[in-house]
Amino acid sequence: MEEKVLKKRILTGDRASGNLHLGHYVGSIVNRLKLQEIYDCYYMIADLHALTTHYEDPDAVRESAKSIFVDYLSVGLDPFKSTLFIQSCVPEHSELYLVFQMLVTISRAQRIPTLKDKLEDLHIEEGLASLGLLGYPVLQAADILLYKADLVPVGEDQVSHIELTREIARRFNYLYGQTFPEPEAMLSEVSRLPGINGNKKMSKSLGNDISLSASREEVQEKVKAMVTDPAKIRKDDPGHPEICTVFAFHKAFNKENAPYIETACKNGRLGCVADKENLASVLNDLLEPIRTRRAELLRKPDYLRELLELGNEKARKVASATMAEVREKVRIGPLSF
Amino acid sequence: MEEKVLKKRILTGDRASGNLHLGHYVGSIVNRLKLQEIYDCYYMIADLHALTTHYEDPDAVRESAKSIFVDYLSVGLDPFKSTLFIQSCVPEHSELYLVFQMLVTISRAQRIPTLKDKLEDLHIEEGLASLGLLGYPVLQAADILLYKADLVPVGEDQVSHIELTREIARRFNYLYGQTFPEPEAMLSEVSRLPGINGNKKMSKSLGNDISLSASREEVQEKVKAMVTDPAKIRKDDPGHPEICTVFAFHKAFNKENAPYIETACKNGRLGCVADKENLASVLNDLLEPIRTRRAELLRKPDYLRELLELGNEKARKVASATMAEVREKVRIGPLSF
Repeated sequence: MEEKVLKKRILTGDRASGNLHLGHYVGSIVNRLKLQEIYDCYYMIADLHALTTHYEDPDAVRESAKSIFVDYLSVGLDPFKSTLFIQSCVPEHSELYLVFQMLVTISRAQRIPTLKDKLEDLHIEEGLASLGLLGYPVLQAADILLYKADLVPVGEDQVSHIELTREIARRFNYLYGQTFPEPEAMLSEVSRLPGINGNKKMSKSLGNDISLSASREEVQEKVKAMVTDPAKIRKDDPGHPEICTVFAFHKAFNKENAPYIETACKNGRLGCVADKENLASVLNDLLEPIRTRRAELLRKPDYLRELLELGNEKARKVASATMAEVREKVRIGPLSF
Repeated sequence: MEEKVLKKRILTGDRASGNLHLGHYVGSIVNRLKLQEIYDCYYMIADLHALTTHYEDPDAVRESAKSIFVDYLSVGLDPFKSTLFIQSCVPEHSELYLVFQMLVTISRAQRIPTLKDKLEDLHIEEGLASLGLLGYPVLQAADILLYKADLVPVGEDQVSHIELTREIARRFNYLYGQTFPEPEAMLSEVSRLPGINGNKKMSKSLGNDISLSASREEVQEKVKAMVTDPAKIRKDDPGHPEICTVFAFHKAFNKENAPYIETACKNGRLGCVADKENLASVLNDLLEPIRTRRAELLRKPDYLRELLELGNEKARKVASATMAEVREKVRIGPLSF
């Protein structure tokens, strides 16, 4: 608790629905590496959230959870500085979720904009969505408030969830006495990495990602397959880097050389083949040490399990203290006569 | 587990929203006293369910939970034969609830007929109901399936909840492999006891109940206030027992003498004053030993706490075994590499 006074606490994480890819790297990992030096960070692998959409394929969720944990360690999230844990290993998330469900109306949950997006992604009508999907943002509020996080790094699209979290915190505090802080959204300024097919979002489910665990050859192939300016057919055709996926990657991963590449492409001095070879090599330089750490870690399964258990334990300790406080205030749990 | 093979398991219980009253006695307690001799019975005090409607008054829920536990013991539910426990003392209820939320669509939950009734009672539109209220029957399914109950004693109005429970069990078994039995509703044949005001249902919230902990004098007063046949003004007016609340109570608690009372009332040989005195004395004879046990128990708070902890422990043991199985099948919780 001493720690808490000194450092603000952060909670963020990833749904366990796929490996981490370069989009995550740019969009959150780089930021988290900085945050862990300054704040008391909780990085959660959200397998229960993944089940809201992937309940028919629990094995994939499990594999993803494992893989993300190894990714976390491989990119340099430090299990001794930060708390890296799996959501379902802390049963208090479910307990607090149920309590919070009393404090949110059906129409409030239906009004969350991300629900509409999810329904579109899944191609279903609202009525056919599961209660789990409807309750998703409430579970997120439980995730955040269980650790009494002060700050939550999120993308623009998740701001409505933080607003709901703040509402729940206020409502709980009003009904049962001051318990939770009202956490603030920490908007990242990083722009989104496009998919290799030029789609504006890199996403495993869209099949346009380059995963952090991709081999050297995979990276080369995926970069080769990237969509470029269709008007640039030969090397000396003038290119339009602003519509080229390869250039978007250069801006994200090769900032220093991006201005030179931009000019050379426009002037017809740089062809797409050489440009892609160059990008593949930049990406492989970035991924090589991650790959090496990944391979080392995978050779030590017991050590991985210990590191995960360390994080789970740290998370459970905080979560169980919060939940004991909640039970006391909501007057549930052990009673005396 | 040996036990399970020999005896079928039953789960039932009461929402912690008020004391138990004579309506409960007739409608469920008498039956439970018989059931505990034959089956492996789990009698649950549902404080989390009570919070779905009483979240603004958690102290009342807590007091009710305590009082119901003492009622259970006082009427003769045996904590050594049956498992008497408090829902919120077994965190697995929340955990299983969250998992089951993935398997139930929003419209399926909205179609449960009791939701409409609840909304009418609360005078609110569906949108203003809480997610907790919408999820109520899913929590009930978790309550039942956590103990793999075979039979669930319910009133007609709860049959739709058992149907949902069976659906969830089937869906879970289909997706993740055989895990849960499909529990059956055990419809009680007992007719409902009216309130003292003649309302067809005795209910604390309607203020027309006689609680099991009512004093001798309270019982006398409440019986005196009972609504009788308005056409019978003097003793020798012919009465119509079929519309008389006092007579409904005689049929429930004084079966042997009911035929004589019926005739005497109709013939103008029995007046309402004497009839009520008679009923009050019958009810007090029934309640006197319950009152005595209640008073004895309340003098031993440590013993009460021990008995409750005994039940909670027994419940947690079964619940945690089921939840371990569920985690394994849904591939959540501790993982190895």
